[in-house]
Amino acid sequence: MALYQKTLEVNTSPKSFLDVTRNVQAIISKSGLGNGICNIFIKHTSASLVIQENYDPSVRQDFETIFAKLVPEDFPYVHSMEGKDDMPAHIRSALTSTSETVPIVSGKLSLGTWQGIYLWEHRDQSHNRKLVVSIMGENGF
Amino acid sequence: MALYQKTLEVNTSPKSFLDVTRNVQAIISKSGLGNGICNIFIKHTSASLVIQENYDPSVRQDFETIFAKLVPEDFPYVHSMEGKDDMPAHIRSALTSTSETVPIVSGKLSLGTWQGIYLWEHRDQSHNRKLVVSIMGENGF
Amino acid sequence: MALYQKTLEVNTSPKSFLDVTRNVQAIISKSGLGNGICNIFIKHTSASLVIQENYDPSVRQDFETIFAKLVPEDFPYVHSMEGKDDMPAHIRSALTSTSETVPIVSGKLSLGTWQGIYLWEHRDQSHNRKLVVSIMGENGF
Repeated sequence: MALYQKTLEVNTSPKSFLDVTRNVQAIISKSGLGNGICNIFIKHTSASLVIQENYDPSVRQDFETIFAKLVPEDFPYVHSMEGKDDMPAHIRSALTSTSETVPIVSGKLSLGTWQGIYLWEHRDQSHNRKLVVSIMGENGF
Repeated sequence: MALYQKTLEVNTSPKSFLDVTRNVQAIISKSGLGNGICNIFIKHTSASLVIQENYDPSVRQDFETIFAKLVPEDFPYVHSMEGKDDMPAHIRSALTSTSETVPIVSGKLSLGTWQGIYLWEHRDQSHNRKLVVSIMGENGF
Repeated sequence: MALYQKTLEVNTSPKSFLDVTRNVQAIISKSGLGNGICNIFIKHTSASLVIQENYDPSVRQDFETIFAKLVPEDFPYVHSMEGKDDMPAHIRSALTSTSETVPIVSGKLSLGTWQGIYLWEHRDQSHNRKLVVSIMGENGF
């Protein structure tokens, strides 16, 4: 059993989904590990991870609409000094995921046909975001 | 440290919870691994995982009621071609879990007394669903 | 690759966040493991885990307000025999996390600058809560 760890840095667009599936797969391929697990961790509290449908982009549009309704910006938050999109961003992060662990089979992420790994930027501005990808598995396959 | 991986296929009922605790425990027992972790991953975006109270079935009934209220079907979703239960199913999946990692102690899932591992089917119809169970741990105990 | 596992017991206050980052880090330090992953699992269904902003305490206050609005106590739940805070506590747990997996780099939790690991007590009373911390990684660093 071996470990391979890498930090992934990406630039996001305001309130949008960024598909990081290929970036994560590239790290797995580089690791040379065949079967095991891949942990993805986002080092932020106002952007998060979602494993979701990778086909129709309107799915992500509806996510934005429903989450804006669930966690309104127009609310008397106590924590408001960083802008009215900040506190909702924290709550949206907690409602989705900070860490996800995906199986690796024969050197590939074992995702379902329609699954992609997304970084969801919850803030109103672009940001540089860091993910840590940790792979544990058996050599070769 | 060793790895044991298995795909689990189950058939769900419309909008309901399926207890998969025994299925996961059976895979752990077959692995012969004593202490470690067990990752459960669901390869779908309209069914998800929830570790919840395993005693009173009315708990799951209330989950269904509250989630139907949080994520209404009667909403002008852009992504609507697959039926009015489809987009809410995606959002309900993101609000709960696609992956869970549970400790294994002495060959058993180290769950709390009242915890069970459930697959929650969010669609209006029965489906065949695939889970990948990845166990990493030490031989024997 | 080695495994180190420990149960952590803490006492919570009613409906509040308890920072367990130091407790988890202490277990990692004791393990002597350098690089790997740390899985934290809560053995309860009415308290949960959240990795969130560790600086301004008002963030946690807003979390409480918004979740009380999303999952109201004043609702005709079927499962009500354990008090009106019980069913909302189950749902709040499912909306956040039962398990989180965090990378370990050079013997330290690889958290972002503003991230802390919190146990969120959703019940109206203090409780003794158990977490299982499982560390898998390489010796030394």
